[in-house]
Amino acid sequence: MIVRPHQHWFLRLFDWHGSVLTSILFRLSLNLLMSLIAILGFPWYETLGIHLTTAPFSLIGVSIAIFLGFRNNASYARFTEARTLWGTLLITQRSLLRQVKSIPTLSLEQAREFANLQIAFNLSMKHQLRHTDPATDLQRTLPPGFRDQVLSNPLPTTQILLRMGEWLAQQRNEGHISDIVWQSMDENLNHLSTVLGGCDRIAGTPIPFAYSLILHRTVYLFCTLLPFALVSDLHAMTPLVSVFISYTFLSLESLAEELEDPFGTAPNDLPLDAICVAIERNLKSMNGDPLPEPLQPDKYFNLT
Amino acid sequence: MIVRPHQHWFLRLFDWHGSVLTSILFRLSLNLLMSLIAILGFPWYETLGIHLTTAPFSLIGVSIAIFLGFRNNASYARFTEARTLWGTLLITQRSLLRQVKSIPTLSLEQAREFANLQIAFNLSMKHQLRHTDPATDLQRTLPPGFRDQVLSNPLPTTQILLRMGEWLAQQRNEGHISDIVWQSMDENLNHLSTVLGGCDRIAGTPIPFAYSLILHRTVYLFCTLLPFALVSDLHAMTPLVSVFISYTFLSLESLAEELEDPFGTAPNDLPLDAICVAIERNLKSMNGDPLPEPLQPDKYFNLT
Amino acid sequence: MIVRPHQHWFLRLFDWHGSVLTSILFRLSLNLLMSLIAILGFPWYETLGIHLTTAPFSLIGVSIAIFLGFRNNASYARFTEARTLWGTLLITQRSLLRQVKSIPTLSLEQAREFANLQIAFNLSMKHQLRHTDPATDLQRTLPPGFRDQVLSNPLPTTQILLRMGEWLAQQRNEGHISDIVWQSMDENLNHLSTVLGGCDRIAGTPIPFAYSLILHRTVYLFCTLLPFALVSDLHAMTPLVSVFISYTFLSLESLAEELEDPFGTAPNDLPLDAICVAIERNLKSMNGDPLPEPLQPDKYFNLT
Amino acid sequence: MIVRPHQHWFLRLFDWHGSVLTSILFRLSLNLLMSLIAILGFPWYETLGIHLTTAPFSLIGVSIAIFLGFRNNASYARFTEARTLWGTLLITQRSLLRQVKSIPTLSLEQAREFANLQIAFNLSMKHQLRHTDPATDLQRTLPPGFRDQVLSNPLPTTQILLRMGEWLAQQRNEGHISDIVWQSMDENLNHLSTVLGGCDRIAGTPIPFAYSLILHRTVYLFCTLLPFALVSDLHAMTPLVSVFISYTFLSLESLAEELEDPFGTAPNDLPLDAICVAIERNLKSMNGDPLPEPLQPDKYFNLT
Amino acid sequence: MIVRPHQHWFLRLFDWHGSVLTSILFRLSLNLLMSLIAILGFPWYETLGIHLTTAPFSLIGVSIAIFLGFRNNASYARFTEARTLWGTLLITQRSLLRQVKSIPTLSLEQAREFANLQIAFNLSMKHQLRHTDPATDLQRTLPPGFRDQVLSNPLPTTQILLRMGEWLAQQRNEGHISDIVWQSMDENLNHLSTVLGGCDRIAGTPIPFAYSLILHRTVYLFCTLLPFALVSDLHAMTPLVSVFISYTFLSLESLAEELEDPFGTAPNDLPLDAICVAIERNLKSMNGDPLPEPLQPDKYFNLT
Repeated sequence: MIVRPHQHWFLRLFDWHGSVLTSILFRLSLNLLMSLIAILGFPWYETLGIHLTTAPFSLIGVSIAIFLGFRNNASYARFTEARTLWGTLLITQRSLLRQVKSIPTLSLEQAREFANLQIAFNLSMKHQLRHTDPATDLQRTLPPGFRDQVLSNPLPTTQILLRMGEWLAQQRNEGHISDIVWQSMDENLNHLSTVLGGCDRIAGTPIPFAYSLILHRTVYLFCTLLPFALVSDLHAMTPLVSVFISYTFLSLESLAEELEDPFGTAPNDLPLDAICVAIERNLKSMNGDPLPEPLQPDKYFNLT
Repeated sequence: MIVRPHQHWFLRLFDWHGSVLTSILFRLSLNLLMSLIAILGFPWYETLGIHLTTAPFSLIGVSIAIFLGFRNNASYARFTEARTLWGTLLITQRSLLRQVKSIPTLSLEQAREFANLQIAFNLSMKHQLRHTDPATDLQRTLPPGFRDQVLSNPLPTTQILLRMGEWLAQQRNEGHISDIVWQSMDENLNHLSTVLGGCDRIAGTPIPFAYSLILHRTVYLFCTLLPFALVSDLHAMTPLVSVFISYTFLSLESLAEELEDPFGTAPNDLPLDAICVAIERNLKSMNGDPLPEPLQPDKYFNLT
Repeated sequence: MIVRPHQHWFLRLFDWHGSVLTSILFRLSLNLLMSLIAILGFPWYETLGIHLTTAPFSLIGVSIAIFLGFRNNASYARFTEARTLWGTLLITQRSLLRQVKSIPTLSLEQAREFANLQIAFNLSMKHQLRHTDPATDLQRTLPPGFRDQVLSNPLPTTQILLRMGEWLAQQRNEGHISDIVWQSMDENLNHLSTVLGGCDRIAGTPIPFAYSLILHRTVYLFCTLLPFALVSDLHAMTPLVSVFISYTFLSLESLAEELEDPFGTAPNDLPLDAICVAIERNLKSMNGDPLPEPLQPDKYFNLT
Repeated sequence: MIVRPHQHWFLRLFDWHGSVLTSILFRLSLNLLMSLIAILGFPWYETLGIHLTTAPFSLIGVSIAIFLGFRNNASYARFTEARTLWGTLLITQRSLLRQVKSIPTLSLEQAREFANLQIAFNLSMKHQLRHTDPATDLQRTLPPGFRDQVLSNPLPTTQILLRMGEWLAQQRNEGHISDIVWQSMDENLNHLSTVLGGCDRIAGTPIPFAYSLILHRTVYLFCTLLPFALVSDLHAMTPLVSVFISYTFLSLESLAEELEDPFGTAPNDLPLDAICVAIERNLKSMNGDPLPEPLQPDKYFNLT
Repeated sequence: MIVRPHQHWFLRLFDWHGSVLTSILFRLSLNLLMSLIAILGFPWYETLGIHLTTAPFSLIGVSIAIFLGFRNNASYARFTEARTLWGTLLITQRSLLRQVKSIPTLSLEQAREFANLQIAFNLSMKHQLRHTDPATDLQRTLPPGFRDQVLSNPLPTTQILLRMGEWLAQQRNEGHISDIVWQSMDENLNHLSTVLGGCDRIAGTPIPFAYSLILHRTVYLFCTLLPFALVSDLHAMTPLVSVFISYTFLSLESLAEELEDPFGTAPNDLPLDAICVAIERNLKSMNGDPLPEPLQPDKYFNLT
């Protein structure tokens, strides 16, 4: 995710990094080529009685804009929900540790042990969503025996959550906490399960494929035919206006596709690494432990 | 549901499977025919003083686009809510089993018995929503006596839920769990009831019929008259532009209709089979049991 | 509510029943008349220097479409919320009876007594929302003494809810259930109160009157003036196009008005009768009682 | 709030009361004047080479319509949320009294005392939101000593809520109710606090001022310039069309402004008086007390 | 935040303060300059065969309006959510103190001590969101030793929340409150954590950068090219219409950017100072303490 500080409006016009320009540059070049073909071919196919006007394009343009708006809404809603789920993760883990720390018979060492389970849960979920290997991260946070058991399980995050439940049940069954205090903590475990299930759902269920297909096809055909409709009015100005309109449509379609899966590492995806560190900082500060440094964006203002 | 991995933008233009193209191909052909009639008939009916221009079509086009957008929103909201309910099912079943497993006096065998009830609940709900026969699936997961009782009941899923409630009440009444622990579990049963009721509501209450009727009729009449309005401007280009515009409107109307009932097995419907297996995997992994294989999409990337 | 099974796209074009066509037919006829006046009067008022073009109508048309879209969204949101509340009613009643049936000292007869209170609550709410007489329905489900007390009260549904609360409090005060079990059941009574209050709110608070007034007036004036703007371009085609555009606007305005109060018995309203029977079936099946038949749509696919 | 019963579509066209027509009549007259100036001045400024066409106005018109739609959505969302909060008030007060009445050691007199506190809470909140004097209403419902204390406090509603909390805590501390029963009631007090805080938020935080400013200015400038753009096409028809378009935009802008603060007493505001009486009726009927008459709309169908 | 009382519609047209006019004045001047260049250069580049018409601009204009609408929705949703979170803060703090005050063994002094912790939490959160120094504010509300500990911690707000949790746990562990009463209070601490986490999320996760970039660029290019398209139709009227259209687009883009981060001190941001004082007044009035004066807007109706 790009976290650009405030920028002068003029400089922003020429900000290259972070726009989706790179991914559509080739298609814009094709559009430019089409414009040139339209200008050169115009006198010839005009004689054949073939000609296009902008009137029907205005009709298609409005409906493409409306459906592109619909798709952007859907993609952005997924992005926002994913971010809110990770926000709930921070909130829940903080509440859970606060509750754990209120157990009078609990040593600081035990609180650290539980906090490590919490941190491992976050990291394991991150790796699961990004399809990366959790081994190194879990090595740091889990005790050796349990770590191997988790890593060999096809559903490691579920295993860690189950272990947190067993930890709490043990406190209850041994009489360190009453059933009611257990109930409050158990509800926070339910919230963790909700976060995990919600992220899994977003990662596993794309927006119905036909939407992206219909829009992709329609936008592309529209941009390809456009120069031929503009040329009779605009002549030499055709390439400028045609590329401008195509940029509007292609960039928004491309962005919607990028936002649809917000768990990647592209410039517009969620900074899961940074969020994991932020949660770890919160938990460790509650135990009075040394804090890891918060992640900083790189020189392109990109935060992973 | 089609779960297409990332595809080059150019290849995507020609992806046939998964679009709704097959279901509107005949209507697009009719539109092509209309365009040819318009071109051939143009000189003749022009002499009769009958002619159409695109101006009023632009008026209708914008309002059709807005209402098609409304209908797509409504259909997509149903799809999303249905998916979220099934996500809640996974979350709740996982939490419920975690709570059950925290009962100190409970044997692993009893936990398996309860997990089987949970799996049967999911499968029974799936069959209820798809109007298919649950017999084979329930045979696998329910004990013989209870299974026959369930299968002979007109509301089998409600029976399984009731049995889960009785199971928990028995634990409470026999003193294995306190009232408070029962309360936490009972709340998760309420969530199961919410999921079942929510899916029933979506399956049983379509979007008001008049919406689809008005839109269907308007879109069709619009596409039929369109060539006659385009022909005076575009002549030989009429078929191309007319079929293009019709494709935009007809495909989105057709998709909205497909998404309206998300519990079917069409390419854009929810993969209930795969979700059921995913929940079963989660529950069985918590009991340390061998896991069924996760469902894989077929060669057309279709997951049921 | 019309619950039309899947229909061939071509037949659907001519489906008469269930559209709002009947309610706007007279207005469409007036529009047809206006078109004829426009055609006949055209040569005459053209000589007076009075003429209209479609350009300003395109301006009004877009804004009417946007505001009609807004009103449809608002009406449909009311419809959806009302349906969801009735869905919550089913869910809550089912959960409540499951909890009641988990009381070990309770006889089946007492569970039936409570289920009858629940069924009476649903029926009383239905009659309250539809302003019909609950006497017959309550006669069937309530014991004689209490029934008369309810029927003579200006707020019968509140009385039944209060009685359910007293029933539960009695179980608690007599020691059949602990405070905690009572708490779980009492929360479900709160949900019943929420459903009742929510439906009351929808029934009692229309969309601000000025919205329907402004739109109604604007749509009507627009449709009346439209033929005079179309005639100079379209001549003999004016009636067809004018009636088509008017149909789009008038039917959607009329539908929005119909959906605004979803508790009626019009073809696009909620099937409260069928929902009441569905809840009754769920509750009775839990007690092992004979079930009433589910309501079936009539030959016009209409379900009340 | 206007609660107009169903009206014939034709009569509705001429319904004067309840539309926002009165508040924009002067501006519409100015628009009419501008149209006349445009018609008379047309030949003269045409010779100066100054002229306007509708093309750029179509551009502005669409974007004004979209932003007016946005503002109407925002205003209507505030109206709806405010209504829902007052609905929650009814629901919560009803649930709270039901819980209070389930206390076995409580006399009917004490239940009445508590119900009076509840009624006073509603009335005090109403007066706070409308900036009116609560003295008369609180005189009727609160005991003398506490009333004076409430009326002299700058935050009277908070005081009444605090008193309700003290009342419940006293029952708990004296052993009339267990902690668990107190918990269920206390949660309903939290809901009351939520309603109060929510209404305060709506009343105290308008939609960002710049939105209304930009729209107000843009709509007005648009309506003023419009006649000059229409006149070259429409000549004598300019006033009719210009006033029609202006009516659409001005009335919707004016209505959005009226709905933004839904707690006033304008025709489109919430009927807080009627809601207060409705809640009072519900509470008193639960105690078997004589009910106040429900408020009826006046002859203009206006309910305050 | 500007809290402008009702204003006559005519005066509002010329209200300078509070609009975003100052921030876009320079860009509007550039647009004016472009219009003059277009008028003067028109005859010359007309001879070169270069010319623009409004038709393609209408196409771009509609899609810009739709996407600007999308961005305004997203920004306003952030503003609204942020305000709701601060509303929840008031509600939760009020409920929490009410619960604390119901502890029978608690002295007024201890209630004041807890209220000070609550006030410190609000102030610390405000300073964290605005990146200002909390030292002076915390000096006033926290006891010396704990204050230094908080101020030296990188996460001060989390520390205060942890302390509130310890305070409640101490009451529970010492037997002043039962587990159940603790549970109700602890849930309100969870709500505080939710508010903190929610505000952090809004402050730390902007709308995906590419959205603002694409819109910013498209709006600017559109406004720059517009005069050249208008000039052939409008001649001398070009500057007026061009600046008018540019004002609509630039001001809304600028406002969306301002609302995106609602925690600043710009005229359209949230009045966090005033909300903090309002919460403090509520809490202090519950303890019978002297109240701070509510914040008043300055002479430009600006409330910070």
